[in-house]
Amino acid sequence: MSDYKKYDSYLEKNLVQSLSELSTYVAQPSISAQNLGLKECAQLVKDMLEKRGFNTEVMVTDGAPVVYGERKGKGDKTLLIYNHYDVQPPEPLELWESPPFEPEIRAGKMYGRGVSDDKSHLTARLFAIDSILSTEGELPCNIKFIIEGEEETSSEHLHEFISNNLDKLKSDACIWEFGGVDHRDIPMQYLGLRGICYVELEVESLGTDVHSGLGGSILPNAAWRLTWALNSLKGVDEHILIPGFYDEVVPPSARDRELMDELPDFADEYKKRYGASRFIKGLTGGTELKIEEVFTPTCTICGLTSGYQGVGQKTVQPASASAKVDFRLVPNQKPDDILKKLRAHLDEQGFDDVKIHYWGGEPAARTDPDDPFIKIVVDTSTEVYGKPMEITPMIGGSGPNYPFVHDLGLPVATMGHGYPDTKAHAPNENIRIDLYLQHAKHMARVILNFTK
Amino acid sequence: MSDYKKYDSYLEKNLVQSLSELSTYVAQPSISAQNLGLKECAQLVKDMLEKRGFNTEVMVTDGAPVVYGERKGKGDKTLLIYNHYDVQPPEPLELWESPPFEPEIRAGKMYGRGVSDDKSHLTARLFAIDSILSTEGELPCNIKFIIEGEEETSSEHLHEFISNNLDKLKSDACIWEFGGVDHRDIPMQYLGLRGICYVELEVESLGTDVHSGLGGSILPNAAWRLTWALNSLKGVDEHILIPGFYDEVVPPSARDRELMDELPDFADEYKKRYGASRFIKGLTGGTELKIEEVFTPTCTICGLTSGYQGVGQKTVQPASASAKVDFRLVPNQKPDDILKKLRAHLDEQGFDDVKIHYWGGEPAARTDPDDPFIKIVVDTSTEVYGKPMEITPMIGGSGPNYPFVHDLGLPVATMGHGYPDTKAHAPNENIRIDLYLQHAKHMARVILNFTK
Repeated sequence: MSDYKKYDSYLEKNLVQSLSELSTYVAQPSISAQNLGLKECAQLVKDMLEKRGFNTEVMVTDGAPVVYGERKGKGDKTLLIYNHYDVQPPEPLELWESPPFEPEIRAGKMYGRGVSDDKSHLTARLFAIDSILSTEGELPCNIKFIIEGEEETSSEHLHEFISNNLDKLKSDACIWEFGGVDHRDIPMQYLGLRGICYVELEVESLGTDVHSGLGGSILPNAAWRLTWALNSLKGVDEHILIPGFYDEVVPPSARDRELMDELPDFADEYKKRYGASRFIKGLTGGTELKIEEVFTPTCTICGLTSGYQGVGQKTVQPASASAKVDFRLVPNQKPDDILKKLRAHLDEQGFDDVKIHYWGGEPAARTDPDDPFIKIVVDTSTEVYGKPMEITPMIGGSGPNYPFVHDLGLPVATMGHGYPDTKAHAPNENIRIDLYLQHAKHMARVILNFTK
Repeated sequence: MSDYKKYDSYLEKNLVQSLSELSTYVAQPSISAQNLGLKECAQLVKDMLEKRGFNTEVMVTDGAPVVYGERKGKGDKTLLIYNHYDVQPPEPLELWESPPFEPEIRAGKMYGRGVSDDKSHLTARLFAIDSILSTEGELPCNIKFIIEGEEETSSEHLHEFISNNLDKLKSDACIWEFGGVDHRDIPMQYLGLRGICYVELEVESLGTDVHSGLGGSILPNAAWRLTWALNSLKGVDEHILIPGFYDEVVPPSARDRELMDELPDFADEYKKRYGASRFIKGLTGGTELKIEEVFTPTCTICGLTSGYQGVGQKTVQPASASAKVDFRLVPNQKPDDILKKLRAHLDEQGFDDVKIHYWGGEPAARTDPDDPFIKIVVDTSTEVYGKPMEITPMIGGSGPNYPFVHDLGLPVATMGHGYPDTKAHAPNENIRIDLYLQHAKHMARVILNFTK
């Protein structure tokens, strides 16, 4: 019988209560891109931490507030847990089967915007803490929480916040906001995140929309200017054409390739999940596709808008046009450097009429797979999941891990209950309740083992 | 003293009444692109004609109904008047100073969607008829009205309707739906219209939106596919790259150039009116700019839509993207031929994933500047406007004049109260009430002179 029976049994008995807390948390909209509900949500998080005896502060930044909490434990070591209370915009609303901010449980899953990314990760971790406190009355180590409200908009002020609070945040290791299982239900240890540089390209060619048959046909068209400018950034072969874009790229090491090679092929699974008939660059699967997803920087159009977008025809020449463009960066690319190169390229190509609005960014960062803390997280997972955690040296997504790794000097481990159909950032975002319970059990084990 | 004093004086005294009828007409939304309010508006138009003793019919087509009306006069000759009761979509709504379907008079202008294009042209013509009927008790010639409901969506069913009703529509001359003065307040005679081929290019690359940092970075991006496909249609130099696109183009004749040359230079006026800093192709003004506006076929992006378009960041790879594209055609280009060439080009360039939705089109058509009917319209204008009408051999806009010119064999004259700042197809569409009255006076003169 496991050493952890009393904690597991607490978690099994009190699951409904934890899901109810999660439901309240998801029902509070907190959309950082739209500055909606952030203060209310920060207060809610503060209350949740205080309920567990944490000393908390809602700390002001130049953007959304950061909720900080700490509780002393028996041992000297300190575990820092990073989460965020903000969520992605819920649009397109018409594709949701239940309203995004009215969480609903259907067939063993809970649905709602932000339920997976990452509100449930906070409540599951608090739930694990509950299981220890209710059994032991105290924690075995110090725990600190840093819960920000701008993760979905590139954590614009987090790096500065961490630089300004190095003493307060001093810890020995960090648990990241997310994690989860792959399509085989095997828990994954993600040891690095790509960076990001998110911009909006804006063209305003006229003071007003014009009839497309009259003046419009001899005046500059904002939608065409945008199309041509975008086309100058990346060719049909997916090669990014901004001079110097690839200069700082560190290619994957032999060890990275080895680790990637051990991971299962996901080609068929991805095609099915996303309704895709092919991958880019003629890739069909295997290690090369896995490496492309993670170790290659990207230039993605996330949105396009210009002129008439309703049903049928409107014969108008649009005065303005804009595109949201997301560059995913690998070590050692830096967002400010990419921004400079982008501006220079557009100017050089004759697109000085295309304005760049920088929405945020951060560089990539990675943790050593041989760090002892990573071993604790990996080892404690086996009993919970029935199979050992697999190690991925880096993943394609982004997050503000750079200041945790480089300013605080921490190993950063990922663990959580994400799963392939979790639909983060998309309609019908959801979590599997069985995985939620497993994450809480795993988290209790990590806390209990951290001081040993 | 003018022969027309009694008609003019009727029109001056009853102006408010006519504007009130116009206001009721504009307040009835009738957006063909959105199939909104068309039947209700057709009924309203029928009532307006019947009030003047016209025999009317609301005639079914495969699209919006056509309102037909006729009233016999003393003479044998028949004047056909073409108008449309549909209007453009009012979007973007936030740029209107008063609601688009709540017409408002401010500083000598009436504002509302469709007030200029072309609801006021119908009421001004009925008003001219009123002035003759109230004075003479009968009309000097037969008058027929054909008022369709799909002009703003390329008059999809009008050509077929005319072909099916050649006897009913038999006439000697036609007055077109619009006309107006230029920036010097000089009335213009527009003797031809470009054709149009309006399409929507649609890409669906995935079954669902995907996180742009994860699967998204190795899956095909609909917005990029669309961008590249659009870019293959037209270069930064504005040259259209579809093979064979220019094959059927009839260049302007020496006479066309001469007529264009006589028209005033509009370069500065356009720049000011539309808030533009330049024209395309390095043009700066003069005859070459005038010819470019009218005798060159175009490929215009009227709208772009894909992915996230809200405030700030959403890191998503869009599953779908689409663009509205409007080709303006010159003699002898034909929409179905352009469609075929577009499809072949996209396929040849590897864009067989880009679907083409054809929203409608029609070829260009022109009327002889020496036709006797054109002379009547031009000559009767001088007294009303204090200056002679100027003749433009063709304009850049489109309309369904092809079946009137080629199937019914009619000379088609343009006259009306459009003016440069009328903002047709744009927010704050408006008419100048002084010009409205002048158009009604001119129209009465044309009717009175038609039998002479």
